[in-house]
Order: sequence, then C-alpha cells, then structure tokens
Amino acid sequence: MKQRLARYLPMLAWARHYDRAAATKDSLAALIVTLMLIPQSLAYAMLAGLPPVTGLYASMLPLIAYTLFGTSRTLAVGPVAVVSLMTAAALGPLFAPGSAEYAAAAMLLALLSGAVLLLMAALRLGFLANFLSHPVISGFISASGILIALGQLKHILGISIDGENAVQLLAALLTALPGAHLPTLAIGGNTLLFLYLVRSRLSTWLQHLGMNAHIAGTLTKIGPVAALLLAIAAVSAFGLADAGVRVVGEVPRGLPSLSLPMLEPALILQLLPAAVLISLVGFVESVSVAQTLAAKRRERIEPNQELVALGGANVAAALSGGFPVTGGFARSVVNFDAGAQTPLAGVLTALGIGITVLLFTPLFHNLPHAVLAATIIVAVLSLVDLSALRRTWRYSRQDAAAMAATMLGVLLIGVESGILLGVGLSLLLFLWRTSQPHIAVVGQLPGSEHFRNVERFAVVQSPRVLSVRVDESLYFPNARFLEDRIAELIGRHPQAEHLVLMCPGVNLIDASALESLEAITARLHAAGIQLHLSEVKGPVMDRLRHSDFLSHFGGQVFISQYEALLALDPDTTFHALERPRERFASIKENAG
Amino acid sequence: MKQRLARYLPMLAWARHYDRAAATKDSLAALIVTLMLIPQSLAYAMLAGLPPVTGLYASMLPLIAYTLFGTSRTLAVGPVAVVSLMTAAALGPLFAPGSAEYAAAAMLLALLSGAVLLLMAALRLGFLANFLSHPVISGFISASGILIALGQLKHILGISIDGENAVQLLAALLTALPGAHLPTLAIGGNTLLFLYLVRSRLSTWLQHLGMNAHIAGTLTKIGPVAALLLAIAAVSAFGLADAGVRVVGEVPRGLPSLSLPMLEPALILQLLPAAVLISLVGFVESVSVAQTLAAKRRERIEPNQELVALGGANVAAALSGGFPVTGGFARSVVNFDAGAQTPLAGVLTALGIGITVLLFTPLFHNLPHAVLAATIIVAVLSLVDLSALRRTWRYSRQDAAAMAATMLGVLLIGVESGILLGVGLSLLLFLWRTSQPHIAVVGQLPGSEHFRNVERFAVVQSPRVLSVRVDESLYFPNARFLEDRIAELIGRHPQAEHLVLMCPGVNLIDASALESLEAITARLHAAGIQLHLSEVKGPVMDRLRHSDFLSHFGGQVFISQYEALLALDPDTTFHALERPRERFASIKENAG
Repeated sequence: MKQRLARYLPMLAWARHYDRAAATKDSLAALIVTLMLIPQSLAYAMLAGLPPVTGLYASMLPLIAYTLFGTSRTLAVGPVAVVSLMTAAALGPLFAPGSAEYAAAAMLLALLSGAVLLLMAALRLGFLANFLSHPVISGFISASGILIALGQLKHILGISIDGENAVQLLAALLTALPGAHLPTLAIGGNTLLFLYLVRSRLSTWLQHLGMNAHIAGTLTKIGPVAALLLAIAAVSAFGLADAGVRVVGEVPRGLPSLSLPMLEPALILQLLPAAVLISLVGFVESVSVAQTLAAKRRERIEPNQELVALGGANVAAALSGGFPVTGGFARSVVNFDAGAQTPLAGVLTALGIGITVLLFTPLFHNLPHAVLAATIIVAVLSLVDLSALRRTWRYSRQDAAAMAATMLGVLLIGVESGILLGVGLSLLLFLWRTSQPHIAVVGQLPGSEHFRNVERFAVVQSPRVLSVRVDESLYFPNARFLEDRIAELIGRHPQAEHLVLMCPGVNLIDASALESLEAITARLHAAGIQLHLSEVKGPVMDRLRHSDFLSHFGGQVFISQYEALLALDPDTTFHALERPRERFASIKENAG
Repeated sequence: MKQRLARYLPMLAWARHYDRAAATKDSLAALIVTLMLIPQSLAYAMLAGLPPVTGLYASMLPLIAYTLFGTSRTLAVGPVAVVSLMTAAALGPLFAPGSAEYAAAAMLLALLSGAVLLLMAALRLGFLANFLSHPVISGFISASGILIALGQLKHILGISIDGENAVQLLAALLTALPGAHLPTLAIGGNTLLFLYLVRSRLSTWLQHLGMNAHIAGTLTKIGPVAALLLAIAAVSAFGLADAGVRVVGEVPRGLPSLSLPMLEPALILQLLPAAVLISLVGFVESVSVAQTLAAKRRERIEPNQELVALGGANVAAALSGGFPVTGGFARSVVNFDAGAQTPLAGVLTALGIGITVLLFTPLFHNLPHAVLAATIIVAVLSLVDLSALRRTWRYSRQDAAAMAATMLGVLLIGVESGILLGVGLSLLLFLWRTSQPHIAVVGQLPGSEHFRNVERFAVVQSPRVLSVRVDESLYFPNARFLEDRIAELIGRHPQAEHLVLMCPGVNLIDASALESLEAITARLHAAGIQLHLSEVKGPVMDRLRHSDFLSHFGGQVFISQYEALLALDPDTTFHALERPRERFASIKENAG
C-alpha cells in the first residue's frame, strides 16, 4: 500500500529526508528561477495571444502539481515557447487574441491537454510519443523558432501586421518596415542587443574582472529581469507610453480565482486535435529534459508517471486561469545549475511568482511589448538549429526528408499541419524501409558449418536445396515482400526441390506473416517444392505451436541450416564435410 | 530498348510463341468464363447500385487493358463483390442509385482509382498495400460478405428497405418480413437452393453418374447461367413480372460509347479517399490471386507492373461506362482450371461479353432481381470466414484485435470507416510492439566467449562493465525506449564504469536512434560511465562513419563482446579464460 502510494506520489521519497541544507539550496535556486521566469512567463503569454499576467498564473499551481506527482527532482514546469505558439495557432483562427473568449478557450485547451495526458497515462499510451521521431521534433522546433521570431518582430518595430505563414509574415514585415515606430524600435533594438551581449559575453567579462564563474553564470540568467526593469524605468522617466510605445498596461493584481473552464462540447471537439498534438510535443520535450538532468545525478525518470504529473500540471493551469504548460529546457537547467535539490524548489518558485502577482503587478504597467518580444526572440533563436538538417542529410536521406517536410510544413502551411506532415512522412518512410528487409540466398562456406550470402562469399550451393536467410522479423509491413521475393527466387531456381528459410534474425512472426508463410507453402507445393525452416528462435517456435502451421506445412524445422542440408541433400555437396552427424543429435537433445 | 518495352508490355513475351494449341485452350476457357461472368457482372453492377448492363460494360475493355499490361497469364479482371460494395458505399450517400449522375460518378470513381494505381506505379508506392495487414483484409472481406448478403436479402424477399449498417439492415428486414412478396420469395428461395446444391453437390452427383470429374466441375461453374435462363423462362411463361416480381427491365443494346467521365473538381476531392481505399483493397486482392495462380506454373508476377495493369483496367472501365474493377478470385480460378494458357483468353472473354451485349441483352428483360441477389449471396457467403477470427486469436491477440475492429467497424459503422479503423489499430499495435524491443543484460558463460541473458543463464558479470544486448534495429519507434531502459539500468548498477551495447541484432540505426545514442552518451558521461559498442554489423558501421558519433562518443567499437570485456576488465572475472588474446588481433586484422 505504502509502496503503491510512493509510486503515484514520488514526493514521499524525498520529503522524509528533507533537511535544512537542502532547504537552503532549494530556496536559492527558487529565487534565481523566479527572477528568470517573470519576464519569460509574461512573454510566452503574449506569444500565446493572452494577457501577459496569465503567464504568471500558469507558473504557480502547475509547478505545485508537478511537485506532487513528478519523478524529476529538478524539472521546472510552466509556459514554454513551442507550446505557446501551438496554443496561439489553435485559438487564433477561432477567437480574437486578448479577448475573454480567447482566454477561456486557452483554459479549456489546457484542461483538454491535461485530460489527454492523464488518459495516456491510464492506458499506458506513452509510446504514442514515438510517432514523433527525433528529426520531426528537431525540424518542428527549429521551424517554430523561426516562425515565433518572425511573428515577434512586429513588436520590436512597433508595427501591426498579420500573416498565416512565414512567407506572408516576412512580406508583411518588409512592406510595413518604413512605418516602423522609432521609439519602440530604439527600445526593442537595444533590448535585443543587451540580451544578446548578456547571453554571449557577460559571463566571460565578469570572470575577466575576477568574479567567480558560478556567480557570473547566475548573473547572466537574470539579464532579462534587468532588461525589464531598465525598460520600465526608461518608459516611466521619458513618458514613452504617451509617445506611442505599446506597453502592457493595467495588470490585475491578486491571485487568479479557481474556476473550471466552460465545457462546450462543440468547442471541445474543435480543440481536441490541437490538445493531442500539444500533449505529445510537450511530453516529448519535457521527458527528454528530465532524462538529461536526472542522468547527471543518477536519478530515474518514470515516463508513465511523468504523464500523470504533466497531466496534473495542465489541469492545474486550466483551473487557475492559465494555458497549456510543460517542462521547459532553459528554466530546468537554471534550476539544476542553481543547485535545486528537490521539487520543493518548484513550490518555492511558485511562491515567488505568487508574491510577484500579489505585490508587483502594478510595476508591469509601463513594460513595453518590445522588451517581451526581444526576450522571446533571443530565447527561441537559440532553439533554431539549421545545421541539424545538414547533419541528418549526411547520415540518412530519409530522416532528412522527414525533417525538411516538417520544417517546410510549419513555415509554409502551419504549426499543426507541419507536424502532421512530418509524422505522416516518417511513418511512410519507416514502412517503406521495413517493408523491404534484406533477404539473401546463402550457401555453405566450404569446410565449415557456416552459411553466408552467395553474392559476397565463395560458397557451395546445393542445386536441390535453396537456402534463404531473412534478416528481419516477419510482420505485416514485409509479409507480402517475402511472398514476392520467394516467388521470384523459385522462378530463378527451376531445379529446387526444397526451400529452407533460415530464421536467425526473425524475432517475430505475426498473423500476416503466418498467412504469407501458408500462402508460400501452398504456392511452393503447387510448384513441387517443400518449405522448411531452420534456426527458429524459441519464442517464435512457441507461438508457431499455437497455430496449425507446423502440423500441415509438411516440412521440418531444423536446428541449423547445416543440419537441414545434411538431411535434405546428404549425397552431393555436403559429404565433403568431415564432421560427425552425431553431434547434431546431442544439440537436438539439449535444445529439446 | 526491346527489353524495356517487354517489361512494360509483358504480352510481347508470350505473343511470339502463340500457337494453335494455346488458342484452342484459351478459347475453351474464355467460353466457360464468359458464361460464368454474365450473371456475375449483372449482379455486381446491381450491388454497386448501377444498371445491370454496366457490369457487362466493365467486363470488356478492362480485360483487354489487363491483357496488354498485366504480368499474370490467367488473372481475370472485372467487377468483384467487395469493390462493388465499396463503390456503393462511396456513391450511395451522394446520388440516387440507378440515376444518371450516379452512373457518371461511378465512371469518375473508376478513373480516379485507375489514376491512383498508375501514380502508385510511377512512384513505386506499391508498398503502401502493406498497410493492409492480412487480419485487416480478412476481417474486411468477411464482414463485407455478411453486409452484402444482408443487403441483398431484400431482393429475395421482394421488399424495399434501407439501412446504414448491419444492425439497421437486420432490424429493417425483420420488421418488413411479414410484407414479403411471395412470388419473388419463391423465385429467390429456389434460386438460392439451386445454386447451393449446384455448388456443393452437383459435381459429386455427376461423378457418381460416371461423368469425368473435370467436365462435372465445369458444369458446376455454369450453374448460375442455368439459374438465370430458368428464371427468365419462368417469369416469361407465367407473366410473373406483372404479378409484381421485380425484373431488370429494358436493357440498352449495343456497345457502350467511349467517353471521358465529367471531371468536376469538388466531386473528385470528395471521391478521392474512397478511390485510394478501393485501389489498395483491389490491388491486394488481385495480386494475391495472381501470385497463387502463377506459382502453380512457376510463372512470376511483377507487383509494380500489376499496378500499371490494374490502373489501365480501371481507366478502361471509366472510359467505357463501367465502374471500379479488379482481379477476381473465383473467375481467375475458373479461367485457370479451364486451361487458359495466355491473357488472350481474357480478350476472347471480352469478345464473348461483347457479343452478349450486342445480341442477347433483350433476353435479360425478364431477369428477376431476386436471381441476381441469390447469385451474389451464394458467391459472397463463401468469402465469409469467421473461424479465421478464432484462429488468429489463438495465434496473436493483437492481430485478432485488429481483425475484430475491422469487422465490427464494417458491420456497425461503414465500409470505409471499418477498414480505416483496422489499419489505424494495426499500425498502433505494430508501433507499440516494436517500441518495446527485447533488451537483455548479458554475462559471460563461464569458460566460453559467449554472452547470454543473465536472467536465463548462469553467467559471470563484471561489476565494472555492464553488458547490454539489443535484439532489434534501433529506430524511432524504440529510440526513446532505449533511453529509458538504459537510464533505468544505470540506476540499478551504481558501480558500473563502462556500458557495452552489444548489437548483433541491430540492422539499422536511424537518425532518431543516433540522437538517442548521443543523448545516452552524454547522460552516461554525466554519470561517469563510458559507452562502447560491440558486434556492430558492416552496413550499420558504414552509416555511423557518415556521422560525428564515432569521433566524439569517446568509447570503442569492439569486434565482439568477449574482446570488449578483455579490454575493459581484464583483471577480475575474465582471466579465468584460457584463450590467448593474440587470437583477437588476427580477427581484428581480418575484419579491418
């Protein structure tokens, strides 16, 4: 009972041993992550088309939910760039960004996403995330990064444009460029430059000045908060809001009230596909971050329990006025580097955000959109990795094709279409690849018991016995290929009386392949050839015994290809061997 | 050039050697197939919701097109039950059966289906047929047979009912049963009984009377024609058409005029999904029949060329007022058994049907629908094989689940939904299965170089070197599973300093798995463990050399697991072995 509980509430494992030292480390980590999260949460909410404060809402309860159920000790959950973009893509066509309906739909989307994750946990469907191959995810993230950066440029330029895809955005940007609002551009451009320098140079400079590397690294992380405060000061001092610089404006103060999103069946059906995609992408991202960090301390992640934790986090986001969340890469690394010991650091971070929401929201009135956009741009451009396409191309054309299709799909059609295109293509290519396994005609290496490919080795073949080796499990993607290849082979070997299928690489024979074997047997019989098997693995034999195949296919199952040829064609080629046949009797007994 | 032509026009292979003996055999076979095809074609057109005569149209030009391009010498192409049902399912919701729009749409559907098949041939997409696993096809055909039989019962009973699925049809039949039209029921019931007896008993009876088995078998095949003529005679003699027995009525005489179906873009988009499914199902059915027959004479089928031939046949059907066609099982077997030598038998059959259309159509005026329905019912019930479900269940629960889902889908939802449900489920189950490959921790069998599963054998393990064997290719469905399992294993082996991945069963490492290996390397490094590989196959190594992995993963690639342990932990367990290390130096050199 206790163990069961510990499995579903992993916090029980660490809560008992919690001490003052861990608490100190967790508190410090929480402070740093809080300072990093404030600008990021505001910015990702804007990216998702929501009032910035919802980003703070989505960074409180979800962290606490993850603390209760999650198996990673350092993962930081909250709004992330890619999921925010997917939220905007799902809701943008349905409601006006910033409206109350839009915000309600975002909550519903988080609820659906949480429900999908919990359902996947209950049905143990975590393997569905495998549909998203690495090239698809990588292409998706790079293309999303570009799309997000393009979409945010309007805030830097202080212009108002719209576009369905990357090309339209780019064209609209270029058209509207002459109308750029100079004060906004000054703030946005300087913030970009500042953030870029902080990210790429600050740590080195500070270390040159003699600062400890760890502290220098920490200061780098709170660069965005500094930029935010500087910009607010500048806007307030020079009255830039009146000069046309768009600012966040009135931000409601106080914690969000807990409420269930409206459950409208038609809208649920409409949002469900997006919720499934958001869940899968979020899950894959989050688990890979968690695995990476856990390995550093030899801790373990339980993927199925992560589904529960992320599901809980999204439900919590939905109940507290937020939008879909997942484990974020940057913040988790910061949390880890800052020395977080347990998920309690997450709870303390949530507390920090809570205090911010209670006390400091009036401060954000004069925060320019341009600064948030610059925060987003600098964050997402680090996700763009175009060289991955070249690397993948060098390694595998097929994987590169799936990656390119995903990227082009995201950039030219849309976020969801892009990922579906990539998944579809990688499934197709996968099926194509496994549908054509390596099937070799083999012969005996003279003087040995080994049988190798006749095209690569100087081997001896029996004219009466055709030896064929299959280097793949036999299942539906390749079942018919096997039929075709064997039909082709017997056409080419008119003298053959026996065909021995050598199965050392066959880990599975499914019902399709069994039907194919039966069809092959019947066709071979019609042509006067008997089928035999050799070197069939134990589990495969066990399963074959559950079918009628063995009793009516008419052939034998040999321990080895060598024994098959000794039995089927002892007179011609194979008496050259000087090994005693008795040996096989003993092998047979052992294998019995 | 000549060879190229021969590849695309397989008829060139046999046309040169054609002689009088072959011509005689072909002519006889054509006569028998023609007599069999007349009732079947009329019946399947009715099943497809079309005027019966279109079935005859669809049995002329398509046969000639297949003769030109097909690689099977005995396959007979034309309307078949399952494809006719799919045609009705696609067009039924759009147009009134029997109307001119319906007929035009059927021609368009055949054209689209032909185009899809030709496109698949051009892009070498024949492997797409693998999506349809044997259990899905088998379940689909059985369920279609039941659905067709239920749908035809109204013609036997002389009532008018409608239903979207099997349950509705059954309910409507039971409700309308008391209103059955007795003269129609008499004709339909007697025809059913007659056809059943002809099919199951006639051949035995005739042989008891001393008739040659072959002739007796042939007479059995033309039973439907006899039933048709008897029924026409009865209707004409007793004026049953006036008594309310529904008959075919006026049938246009003469050949169909050649014309292109109307190409309406909206309708094309609407019919395309159905055309794709019809193409795939038709292709799978046709190729498996062709393979079976070809094997009997050690001939060969070229699946990609079959796509061309079936595509051509469907385009021909579209141009001559027909509907989607494919290679049929029953008629091909009859053609084969009757001794057809070349595809010219198909041309002669087309000629026979042509003569029928030119001269005998007035004969069909008094042909009762009930007789056609009886022909269909007897034909399709032989396709229903419910015991396949039990057999598959015994062999594999997963395959049985896919089969059951297809059957229930077809019976309860609809033809297309059913097949899509089955395909989706079998893909899911396939992905689930391959996403969890067998991964074993292995140890050394004392005194040997063999490494086996620690859970099954009494083996020796090094405390410092963790040996892990993967029994599956590494690709995206299982890439993350490998990450999870290795994370779990290193959690359980705190003393490990090296992890050797033994890869004798790995036929492929795709880009996803490569990324996973890189992530695993990094995580192992973070935990102070070095990754190594052993027993990597040649093609896999070739590909790895195209990536940066080998240069920066920091480990070694060993020829064998034994050599890996000799190198990594020579002091502890393994000096028990008395084999000279020099041996490996020579192996290394050979493998160089």
